[in-house]
Amino acid sequence: MNLILLSPDDIENHHLARVREPRRLAHLREVHRARSGDVMTLGIENGALGRGALLSLDDREAVFDIAGLDQAPPPPLPVHLVLALPRPRMLARTLEHVTALGVKALTLLNTRRVEKSYWQSPELSEAKIRRHLVLGLEQARDTRMPSVTLAKGFRPFVEDTLPGLLVGRQGLLAHPGMPDDCPRGIDRETLLVVGPEGGFIPWEVERLLEAGCRGIHLGPRILRVETAVTALLARLF
Amino acid sequence: MNLILLSPDDIENHHLARVREPRRLAHLREVHRARSGDVMTLGIENGALGRGALLSLDDREAVFDIAGLDQAPPPPLPVHLVLALPRPRMLARTLEHVTALGVKALTLLNTRRVEKSYWQSPELSEAKIRRHLVLGLEQARDTRMPSVTLAKGFRPFVEDTLPGLLVGRQGLLAHPGMPDDCPRGIDRETLLVVGPEGGFIPWEVERLLEAGCRGIHLGPRILRVETAVTALLARLF
Repeated sequence: MNLILLSPDDIENHHLARVREPRRLAHLREVHRARSGDVMTLGIENGALGRGALLSLDDREAVFDIAGLDQAPPPPLPVHLVLALPRPRMLARTLEHVTALGVKALTLLNTRRVEKSYWQSPELSEAKIRRHLVLGLEQARDTRMPSVTLAKGFRPFVEDTLPGLLVGRQGLLAHPGMPDDCPRGIDRETLLVVGPEGGFIPWEVERLLEAGCRGIHLGPRILRVETAVTALLARLF
Repeated sequence: MNLILLSPDDIENHHLARVREPRRLAHLREVHRARSGDVMTLGIENGALGRGALLSLDDREAVFDIAGLDQAPPPPLPVHLVLALPRPRMLARTLEHVTALGVKALTLLNTRRVEKSYWQSPELSEAKIRRHLVLGLEQARDTRMPSVTLAKGFRPFVEDTLPGLLVGRQGLLAHPGMPDDCPRGIDRETLLVVGPEGGFIPWEVERLLEAGCRGIHLGPRILRVETAVTALLARLF
């Protein structure tokens, strides 16, 4: 953990934060091995970050001095990522990777080759998703919480939601065999669409291209979704 | 699996390969759900790849028609990756990621912040490492087996091995806070050095810079090693 993320509920006033949630208290003790007096990197969810002291830690609460938090979080990536729902374990890791890399908007999309059982996974609960987002933010020393949306129907997403998302954004569809190389080092607002293991079916590719996405590829190698997403984000931005 | 990788021992002649190893036979049945007559993407370790039929499959052996394998594997990345030994589970995943991305030379390096216990892990056995390399090759439809070297002493590596590796290669040290942005889209032969969770200690950074490496960074975000390695390779090449 490179940062302790404080939630809005923890903030008592401009000087003090109190963490009372048992899970996070245990985490502070067991993972951070925190002791009162420690000066740690702290951040307020969707707010500032900086160094601050742990004033006290007992079984009931941890009290932090947050008067010195005056740094802005690192800049986000200008991307809305649309990702075919990965299998649960890969979802967990991918949420952490993309959050650490600076993605702030993520849509998890149903496609033909997403197994139906993935939508029943406990990993999709709000609490579990939030947990992985927090881990990603803590890893990257970021405070801005990504928003994650579930799109359980491909057709409604493409017909009703995608046109709005493409206003003011270029759409890029990453899919093996597409004509263009993945662009490098862009700073345009972008919507990036990444398919499931096994890829989009041709009908889905056609719908995404028709909706205005441009097809791009990462070369002849077929990558696992988690590798591909990190590689795409690192190359694009 | 996007390719079945045949080892040199499996090759009977220019037309036939026989797989007799029980583990891989089980894998063919259970993971590939292969049946005789299936036409599959096959590759010969360090050789050609293409489509070929599974002629027969029983408890004893699988026989493949390899007469039609005439494609070259995808181009490798022009990089020798020097990676501080990650913790065992991350090592396993990182071996697969970097192999899928096209790394052909990997040195696992001891540094101050590598826990000593990692060097005792069964994940470092030749068989386990090879297993992850094969998975990476099968994922990316590649046949060229990477070479993996263990460097259990930092100082001997930097003093005795590194100078030779830097002949004909630029050395890049990826480390937070280094002055230069990670270059993009290069095709020069490169030695890329990546530290452990927690980073290199200052003395190690100095030795690597003195040896001729240039310090580069990926921005203000602190990434896990597996995310950072994929991001560096995708941005560099």
